[in-house]
Amino acid sequence: MRFFITENEHKKRIERLKRKLEKKNLDALYITSGVNIFYLTGYSYIATERPAALVIPLNGEITFMGPLLEADHIPLKTRLIKDIKTYLDYPGKKHPIEHFAEFLRSMGLAKKNIGIDNMAGAAAIWGYSGPPITKKLASARFVHVKDLVYNMRLIKSKEEVELMRESAKWVNLAHSLLQEYTATDLWDFDIAMAASHEASITMKRALGPEYEPQRWGRSPAMAGFRGQVGKMSAIPHSIATNRPIMEGDILITGAGADVGGYSCELERTMILGEPTLKQRRLFGIMMKAQEAAFNALKPGVRCNSVDRAVWKIIKKAGLTGLVRHHTGHGLGLEAHEPPWLDIGNNDLLKPGMIVSCEPGIYELGFGGFRHSDTVLITDDEAEILTYYPRDLESLTIPA
Amino acid sequence: MRFFITENEHKKRIERLKRKLEKKNLDALYITSGVNIFYLTGYSYIATERPAALVIPLNGEITFMGPLLEADHIPLKTRLIKDIKTYLDYPGKKHPIEHFAEFLRSMGLAKKNIGIDNMAGAAAIWGYSGPPITKKLASARFVHVKDLVYNMRLIKSKEEVELMRESAKWVNLAHSLLQEYTATDLWDFDIAMAASHEASITMKRALGPEYEPQRWGRSPAMAGFRGQVGKMSAIPHSIATNRPIMEGDILITGAGADVGGYSCELERTMILGEPTLKQRRLFGIMMKAQEAAFNALKPGVRCNSVDRAVWKIIKKAGLTGLVRHHTGHGLGLEAHEPPWLDIGNNDLLKPGMIVSCEPGIYELGFGGFRHSDTVLITDDEAEILTYYPRDLESLTIPA
Repeated sequence: MRFFITENEHKKRIERLKRKLEKKNLDALYITSGVNIFYLTGYSYIATERPAALVIPLNGEITFMGPLLEADHIPLKTRLIKDIKTYLDYPGKKHPIEHFAEFLRSMGLAKKNIGIDNMAGAAAIWGYSGPPITKKLASARFVHVKDLVYNMRLIKSKEEVELMRESAKWVNLAHSLLQEYTATDLWDFDIAMAASHEASITMKRALGPEYEPQRWGRSPAMAGFRGQVGKMSAIPHSIATNRPIMEGDILITGAGADVGGYSCELERTMILGEPTLKQRRLFGIMMKAQEAAFNALKPGVRCNSVDRAVWKIIKKAGLTGLVRHHTGHGLGLEAHEPPWLDIGNNDLLKPGMIVSCEPGIYELGFGGFRHSDTVLITDDEAEILTYYPRDLESLTIPA
Repeated sequence: MRFFITENEHKKRIERLKRKLEKKNLDALYITSGVNIFYLTGYSYIATERPAALVIPLNGEITFMGPLLEADHIPLKTRLIKDIKTYLDYPGKKHPIEHFAEFLRSMGLAKKNIGIDNMAGAAAIWGYSGPPITKKLASARFVHVKDLVYNMRLIKSKEEVELMRESAKWVNLAHSLLQEYTATDLWDFDIAMAASHEASITMKRALGPEYEPQRWGRSPAMAGFRGQVGKMSAIPHSIATNRPIMEGDILITGAGADVGGYSCELERTMILGEPTLKQRRLFGIMMKAQEAAFNALKPGVRCNSVDRAVWKIIKKAGLTGLVRHHTGHGLGLEAHEPPWLDIGNNDLLKPGMIVSCEPGIYELGFGGFRHSDTVLITDDEAEILTYYPRDLESLTIPA
């Protein structure tokens, strides 16, 4: 069993990328996204204020330009990056972007067409400040092509699907433990940390020494509530709750498990104690909406028609005022990625796409209702990869 | 006891910001950074692919523009955002940036001078794609002023210093537990999760119901190794290790604790088992380097002179080849923030600045040596806020 993408697949990705560059008349790609660098090379890079970029020339060596502290790291993680060009640290006596302009010149790219994912020439996060590479190497022609690698990531390969399938098992375990440990008078983060810890050790023991987490700052498996407890369950991006869990609470959960950097998404609405009539009713409508989305998910169908299938159910129930977001988003290496299951996205679903299916309804002052499952679009239908129970009875926790 | 920044201080920050806007002849500030929105309003916003911005006009209401799913959240967290303008979801039938251009027009900003932290008009992370706001509202004059709020954050207020002092206690607890639980044959993440869990529950019990974590996806307190185990301790941004902890290992740790969104940084080099002569020697040189940096940290001193004091020690030891990064960075709301204790940063240290002090040396194939402490620049000297033992004896774990 393998818990990472093979070098062979990374090579294929790079070849595919080069063909895309050729079509766009680009001589090189310059990417600053840590996740996309990982996607292309298997080297998991933590993006910080320190500028870093992977440069993939059509002809020539794949080159990493970045801070010295990554120099020893890269050869341990990938054989595909052949050249490593570094500066000491940020901001430095000479700004890193000045170094990068020189590095590009030394690679013969001074007057070339360069596709770039961020015109700054750096991830430009945290307290980063600096001149754009487009100004420091004004002789080159930079073309903004952020979507290029994202579009490659839309369709998952066989290897990627295998990792997602493996992830599904461990999100299931993490969520089982979360539900098992949920009880009144406990704080949400306490339950979350206990479940995440046990699931992570178990996962690591089961997968063996070959398994390494790839997502920085995350445990192998995790499950939690993100503050969506009681009334706060009505706030989709709540962060914390100001009281322990109580009888009568609606709880919205979330679980993930990193397998080779890939993770499924599993979210459930649980009720602590006997559900009220109103809780049952809203839960039921959410279930119908998710069912409608499941039924709509097929290759050849447009993303917006999935979202429309959900709207239809919610509208019929007279609850359009409780909708706060669209039906779902792509899954793989990032928390959210394309394609968007959104009323405004006319793109076709294709075999190999993996999306979250998570219509929700939220009543301020009462609570929220949302399940999220990870769905693979297959050659002729769709397969729900996450298999945790969805029905209210299974998700009711005795008080 | 209070574990958050008061509304009064947020108001003062906004007033201070407005005076800065006036000086720059700007009519409004448009910020997309979740952390800076939190800094100005106390509302902890999770940035995603969905565009969002806080608009602070010199005259007029502070306005949030963003996805519908945040609408109910904001009034629960701040009274300072008076107007909330939303779009349904991303990408939508009409792109959110088109909505934002209209929102700005409706606020009377169509022909004004607008300071902005990201010319895209959105955090533009993950799979986001869209036209820059500067093109969609071409009648306005946008001025890139990312540093404006970062510069305000450089000097910590009395309230901020109090939160950092409180954080120091809990990073100390988390690290104590990490050291206590460290033993051979355990995986780094297992020890980390056990220590983080126990520290978080204890912290929450001690601080009481008023305490809420503010950092998304993080536990109240955390301590871990980030893969810096054994030989991998030589890789400053290692992510994982491929074997359990063994006797003889050098371990580089890290701990944080979220108090009102602020966190100290505490890192230590620990040795499992009797340290070898070479381990002792390199540990000793790292300690001398940190001591030199501590001594150099004073108000009125330039940031680069602190880094130079470290270089002097390392040079004398003949180990410049083992340096992989500068001496430190600012601390507060983000993992790294200005000021940079870097050879290239000529800025003066001032009372109220808080920085990490973490010179390191790293020998590939052998191991790394780094402590990090959080240091407050006071009116006439510097105070080390983190007080965990630094000496080798205290950091040696019996095998």
